[in-house]
Amino acid sequence: MSIAVMCSGGDAAGMNPGVKQFVEYSFELGLKPYLIYDGLEGLIDGDIKEATHERVGGIIHRGGTVIRSSRSKRFFDIEFRKQAFENLKEKGIDKLVVFGGDGSFRAMRQFYHDFGINFVGIPTTIDNDIFGTDYCLGVDTALNVIRTSIDDIRDTAASFKRAFVIETMGRDCGYLALVSALTSGAEMLVVPEMENDFESLKTKFKQQIKDGRSYIIAIVAEGSGKTDEVCEWFKTDIGMDSRASTIGHIQRGGSPSVFDRLMAFEFAKLSIDKLMLKADDRNVIVYKDSKFDFVSIDYIGSQKYQIKSDLIKLAEKLVR
Amino acid sequence: MSIAVMCSGGDAAGMNPGVKQFVEYSFELGLKPYLIYDGLEGLIDGDIKEATHERVGGIIHRGGTVIRSSRSKRFFDIEFRKQAFENLKEKGIDKLVVFGGDGSFRAMRQFYHDFGINFVGIPTTIDNDIFGTDYCLGVDTALNVIRTSIDDIRDTAASFKRAFVIETMGRDCGYLALVSALTSGAEMLVVPEMENDFESLKTKFKQQIKDGRSYIIAIVAEGSGKTDEVCEWFKTDIGMDSRASTIGHIQRGGSPSVFDRLMAFEFAKLSIDKLMLKADDRNVIVYKDSKFDFVSIDYIGSQKYQIKSDLIKLAEKLVR
Amino acid sequence: MSIAVMCSGGDAAGMNPGVKQFVEYSFELGLKPYLIYDGLEGLIDGDIKEATHERVGGIIHRGGTVIRSSRSKRFFDIEFRKQAFENLKEKGIDKLVVFGGDGSFRAMRQFYHDFGINFVGIPTTIDNDIFGTDYCLGVDTALNVIRTSIDDIRDTAASFKRAFVIETMGRDCGYLALVSALTSGAEMLVVPEMENDFESLKTKFKQQIKDGRSYIIAIVAEGSGKTDEVCEWFKTDIGMDSRASTIGHIQRGGSPSVFDRLMAFEFAKLSIDKLMLKADDRNVIVYKDSKFDFVSIDYIGSQKYQIKSDLIKLAEKLVR
Amino acid sequence: MSIAVMCSGGDAAGMNPGVKQFVEYSFELGLKPYLIYDGLEGLIDGDIKEATHERVGGIIHRGGTVIRSSRSKRFFDIEFRKQAFENLKEKGIDKLVVFGGDGSFRAMRQFYHDFGINFVGIPTTIDNDIFGTDYCLGVDTALNVIRTSIDDIRDTAASFKRAFVIETMGRDCGYLALVSALTSGAEMLVVPEMENDFESLKTKFKQQIKDGRSYIIAIVAEGSGKTDEVCEWFKTDIGMDSRASTIGHIQRGGSPSVFDRLMAFEFAKLSIDKLMLKADDRNVIVYKDSKFDFVSIDYIGSQKYQIKSDLIKLAEKLVR
Repeated sequence: MSIAVMCSGGDAAGMNPGVKQFVEYSFELGLKPYLIYDGLEGLIDGDIKEATHERVGGIIHRGGTVIRSSRSKRFFDIEFRKQAFENLKEKGIDKLVVFGGDGSFRAMRQFYHDFGINFVGIPTTIDNDIFGTDYCLGVDTALNVIRTSIDDIRDTAASFKRAFVIETMGRDCGYLALVSALTSGAEMLVVPEMENDFESLKTKFKQQIKDGRSYIIAIVAEGSGKTDEVCEWFKTDIGMDSRASTIGHIQRGGSPSVFDRLMAFEFAKLSIDKLMLKADDRNVIVYKDSKFDFVSIDYIGSQKYQIKSDLIKLAEKLVR
Repeated sequence: MSIAVMCSGGDAAGMNPGVKQFVEYSFELGLKPYLIYDGLEGLIDGDIKEATHERVGGIIHRGGTVIRSSRSKRFFDIEFRKQAFENLKEKGIDKLVVFGGDGSFRAMRQFYHDFGINFVGIPTTIDNDIFGTDYCLGVDTALNVIRTSIDDIRDTAASFKRAFVIETMGRDCGYLALVSALTSGAEMLVVPEMENDFESLKTKFKQQIKDGRSYIIAIVAEGSGKTDEVCEWFKTDIGMDSRASTIGHIQRGGSPSVFDRLMAFEFAKLSIDKLMLKADDRNVIVYKDSKFDFVSIDYIGSQKYQIKSDLIKLAEKLVR
Repeated sequence: MSIAVMCSGGDAAGMNPGVKQFVEYSFELGLKPYLIYDGLEGLIDGDIKEATHERVGGIIHRGGTVIRSSRSKRFFDIEFRKQAFENLKEKGIDKLVVFGGDGSFRAMRQFYHDFGINFVGIPTTIDNDIFGTDYCLGVDTALNVIRTSIDDIRDTAASFKRAFVIETMGRDCGYLALVSALTSGAEMLVVPEMENDFESLKTKFKQQIKDGRSYIIAIVAEGSGKTDEVCEWFKTDIGMDSRASTIGHIQRGGSPSVFDRLMAFEFAKLSIDKLMLKADDRNVIVYKDSKFDFVSIDYIGSQKYQIKSDLIKLAEKLVR
Repeated sequence: MSIAVMCSGGDAAGMNPGVKQFVEYSFELGLKPYLIYDGLEGLIDGDIKEATHERVGGIIHRGGTVIRSSRSKRFFDIEFRKQAFENLKEKGIDKLVVFGGDGSFRAMRQFYHDFGINFVGIPTTIDNDIFGTDYCLGVDTALNVIRTSIDDIRDTAASFKRAFVIETMGRDCGYLALVSALTSGAEMLVVPEMENDFESLKTKFKQQIKDGRSYIIAIVAEGSGKTDEVCEWFKTDIGMDSRASTIGHIQRGGSPSVFDRLMAFEFAKLSIDKLMLKADDRNVIVYKDSKFDFVSIDYIGSQKYQIKSDLIKLAEKLVR
């Protein structure tokens, strides 16, 4: 019996240990594992190779994904999906494990409706913005990379009387920014999920500066779109020189953390176990309250992901 | 109302962010927070200072504990406990938050029975060997420090045809070794909790070496006491040159990971909340199935900590 | 005899170990060392404290500068310089060690001409753009921080068929970019000092992509001002998706490397030794061909810093 | 014309970028480069492969050596050397670049006398113990790995009133220990090259402890053989609890630093240039006073490596 693995959408740490575990566990079960290179694009173009120990050797500690990922417009077209199906059929593959986000999962559901290819989606994104799961693969590594960056920037921030406005990734979701602000001891946070009381912050910071505070670190989620505005605000309203600094693509890189590696193993193993059972519409594996479960794509699409209220509460002192 | 914090026993990453949160949350509640330096020894000697923002500034990202820790024989003696009590009484402190292990918690229970000083213990040890909680503060950082070390050693291991036998900390508990072996892709694991089938391993490794394997990494828990034995076994039974390498005290150091920082915040906050309520015998905060709870010291002492069965299962391929 | 240390201009790793050595060596010689906080601004405002072991304890491994730095417009004004002089006079300080760049050194020369305060300037900038010295304090750390970032970004770059255009700091000088491109194995380099043959690069990259190359990393010096242009060029001329990523302020942060720490020690020690001698106009310590020397400010201002020809030669394959 | 590269003896960071540069520069010159796997053992056994871009792709940032190294007793035997020569002859290889230490170089000189195979040796060892060169490839990375370890251990050391006795590698040479002690701000140093005045240290430490010092870090070179003795000395003579910690094989691992990468490039390039000229007895490339040069094996064997006197002088305060 043949089974394949694919990465789709933005890359995240944890994909490589996940792919490795996919291959090893497939072998343990006597399955024939395949690697689809370049995501949906490779699926269409037939870039599918039989997995071997060599192909997944020495990847467990590497960021990104050695089987590469992609975004695909062609896959919206039934002709290309048919082509993709033919590629799988030729190799006898009728089961897929997909590391990706909700967009990728919806594409695969369409593919399942078209051609009956069963799949499990493993929520994988540093944005941690998928409803129904407490955790998406790659988040822990991203948070720790950001943490190290902020710890480093703190030293240079403390060398001047200056505000540092640091932008983190996360698309519309403020999770990365919020957790990073809390755990790095930042003085201010700007995320789409919370409203800032700039007047109150102004009063607070002005007092603190009077009392001797020499620098301020503010973390801004890219989704808030307010990085430049906040940087300017420090200059005009607080009267403090400021610098904006975007933590760029290093957030996606970095060797997977222990937690992301362990979760990748569990996700991959349980996804294969699920695919051995009769197909149903619960195509997405989630991690909720320390337990693994499978939910439907409709379910994860039914609501916007909400940051847990206890985190929001901890962060309240940073927005006002 | 006055409240104090103390670190006791082996240090672990997360103590510093925990102490910082202790101070900040105390201020939020209008309490008067104190810092006890040098653990039980400082408690006896009256090394207790009023907490200020300055004293806990810039510590969130530092390993170890700036208020230091100790082990104390004197505290077994009622005379010295009385002296400790007088020190607290003088400052009006009747509530303690203690970062430490079960030994420290039992000492505090005795102290409570003697003089009615209420306390909450926060399980803090890189060994992760406390029954009743899935997680002890500092474990995540330790695991990631070990991971980085093994990833680095792998490069030098791969430069020779050689087996590397790497010893991790953990006292009697194989948790650190087991998770490290899994997540670093080691080929072999030796822990007190599992029995090795050396004959089966020998057959497997000999075949793999014949098939081209050029190096082997084995992770050994210090609690197994078998590091040298395994190192010798590779030379005599497998016919492969070998080196033993102990990952030493860097396992305790290192900047706290994001997870350990977040947990330190929650542990400290909830511990203070608990101390505001009427005292009962549930003195230890635990994290179980993603939920925080309070249990008694008798409960955590009632059984030996067991590594979760799904981890044991994942690791089985490494012991035979 | 009293002596003071000051940091001026952009911060760089190595300032802290330098300040620590300044204090310790001053004590060894029986001098009375002072710390000027906030650079020239603090000099004007009299923020000058007697140095103690405590004030420079635990700083050797920290980036930035604990005595902080600044840029000052006021210092161009003789009135404020006079005020600065009075602050020094009051404490009996007539010798200064200054970590900074050529702008700061010129300011200090003016100050010397005005009031006879002798000084030595230690070239300190991650830009490595000072003529007359092979090396400026902080460069080695900056290069290693950039290296780590690029190594990390490589994993995410390799996860897509994509060009990554990475911008490094360095103002008008391409040194950081050039060395980073060489040592990270980048495929392309854009610096002010070298001309790119885009036609030749286009031919080369198109052929390589045909032969299977899946991603390209280009390093661009901020001083070239071409980051966006190059990013666009990959899309339009090469037909390859691309992303621009700026390595921001983490380049300034980071724990000082061993080389920067050692150099900071030597710079600080030799600068004090020089100040013990009769003043002359050779106010800047340099490191040239593995030897320390003192040169005049006119000399370092007489030419633009040139990247060594052997490095330029090694890099030629990256610009065409 | 064919040329080969080999690694011999202990591995060190910088070998991989060196091998990569060897291959690329050979291609640039129109040579046919070969890789000898497993050092002298592979040379005897004919494990020699034509180099390709693929074989050296993605290795620039990896520690150790992907072509592996070995120590060989067989090579002392003329029969095996003859076999090695036949392997080279078969492929038309008459030039070798060898990363290794003086033992490896002497073996190659014998090989040259036997069969006329010209070679250049690149001094590569983290011990930095080769006379005639200021620097051996890999030292800078090793120093920075040790630095990070000590910085981490410092946090845990500072958590107790305790002395930490940290042992570094370096065989008979104290260079690693001495530079590490200086740059990490250690309080004590024990190396074969310097004599400790334990009485003076005792007086100093006892006074410092009285004045409030809470922990001490001592760096001991493995070559001194005194780690346990010093650890005991703290307990008995100073009356301070102590722990010994050996920084093990991570000193050899780790991604090569920028300096080691750059030096590897220069070493490899210049070595090939030299091999293009008529053979003479100056077979070892060295780096002395910022200049590259070639010296004879007799020369590097003529004296024991001496740590530079200015470093010894800086370190004197740590031995008494």
